[in-house]
Amino acid sequence: MLKLYYTPGTCALASHIVLAEAGADYSVEKIDFKTGQQSSPGYLAINPKGRVPALVTERGILTETPAMLAYIAQMFPQAGLAPLDDAFAFAEVQSFNSYLCSTVHIAHAHKMRGHRWANEESSFADMKRKIPETMRASFSLIEQKMLRGPWVMGEQYTICDPYLFTIAQWLEGDSVDINAFPKVAEHFRRMSERVAVKKAFAEQAA
Amino acid sequence: MLKLYYTPGTCALASHIVLAEAGADYSVEKIDFKTGQQSSPGYLAINPKGRVPALVTERGILTETPAMLAYIAQMFPQAGLAPLDDAFAFAEVQSFNSYLCSTVHIAHAHKMRGHRWANEESSFADMKRKIPETMRASFSLIEQKMLRGPWVMGEQYTICDPYLFTIAQWLEGDSVDINAFPKVAEHFRRMSERVAVKKAFAEQAA
Repeated sequence: MLKLYYTPGTCALASHIVLAEAGADYSVEKIDFKTGQQSSPGYLAINPKGRVPALVTERGILTETPAMLAYIAQMFPQAGLAPLDDAFAFAEVQSFNSYLCSTVHIAHAHKMRGHRWANEESSFADMKRKIPETMRASFSLIEQKMLRGPWVMGEQYTICDPYLFTIAQWLEGDSVDINAFPKVAEHFRRMSERVAVKKAFAEQAA
Repeated sequence: MLKLYYTPGTCALASHIVLAEAGADYSVEKIDFKTGQQSSPGYLAINPKGRVPALVTERGILTETPAMLAYIAQMFPQAGLAPLDDAFAFAEVQSFNSYLCSTVHIAHAHKMRGHRWANEESSFADMKRKIPETMRASFSLIEQKMLRGPWVMGEQYTICDPYLFTIAQWLEGDSVDINAFPKVAEHFRRMSERVAVKKAFAEQAA
């Protein structure tokens, strides 16, 4: 039994959807950012980084979305969520997810989490103003060079797809029109209709 | 034959060391940031992100350090650079590398690359001032919670080790004393003595 710590609206959704897609036996537990639960001693004992997601397994706790997604794909090979027997194709999956994690998510994080990298209110405001530009640049690259269609990696639905969907959800709040990126927008619509996505949203709303 | 595009002083060193550790047949080509070569049409055709590293393989081009490191480990299993037959242990390796990529490298990048996330000189100066604090926080977590010793994952030397070494190199320039982190400092010394590390440095200096 796997247990996912999540907060609604965060990148934890990607792992949540992938657990549902994998047909895994899992439970979820919400961490409340409004009361600072992510920094409570109880949660820091689970994830010393004070972030979500975290995945409790029989072997120990895993953090970092790209690692968690690849782990779930490897633990549930019958779900076919990654090209596990092809090192190059697997590396392409990992490269895409690493880009989402270290470039796109980071760009977005400068809207609300500027305090991680600066101290002055004027810097936070400056960072916020740049969000539409950085998110648009990231999604332009995804649209033009990365998303093969119909899924990120082409015909095979992989762990890249829920992760892209999760971050594409943030575009509206970041003042970027998803329809400027037709392939991303179409991908988003198709993702929204998947049973696993609806299941994850329902579980997070429960 | 693999070909690595690199720039001295960047995270490309991690992949370079791992290629050497793997006993791979590889060549390297330098991209000159001083002349803006990373944004030249020729290089953008290789890596549309305009960054290093990039790894040219027979199947295509890979970018993103965590993906490249796992790929090299998988392509050269006899080198034993990752626990390839243990999904949980492999996920731990990936989690560590993802943390380096999306938190530690990003923290460091705010020193010279503030323009990625803001527009004002005052913001860049603010970001620069915070570098010692963010890098110290990252390496405190690595020292206390992550680096098992003697290698990152314990007894097995893995792809985590060259990556940690690569980023630990930046501490001095970031005004952080590596000796405040005894396990990291000892790891750094042991890494410096490895044949593969000396080989990579020599090739980058050539």
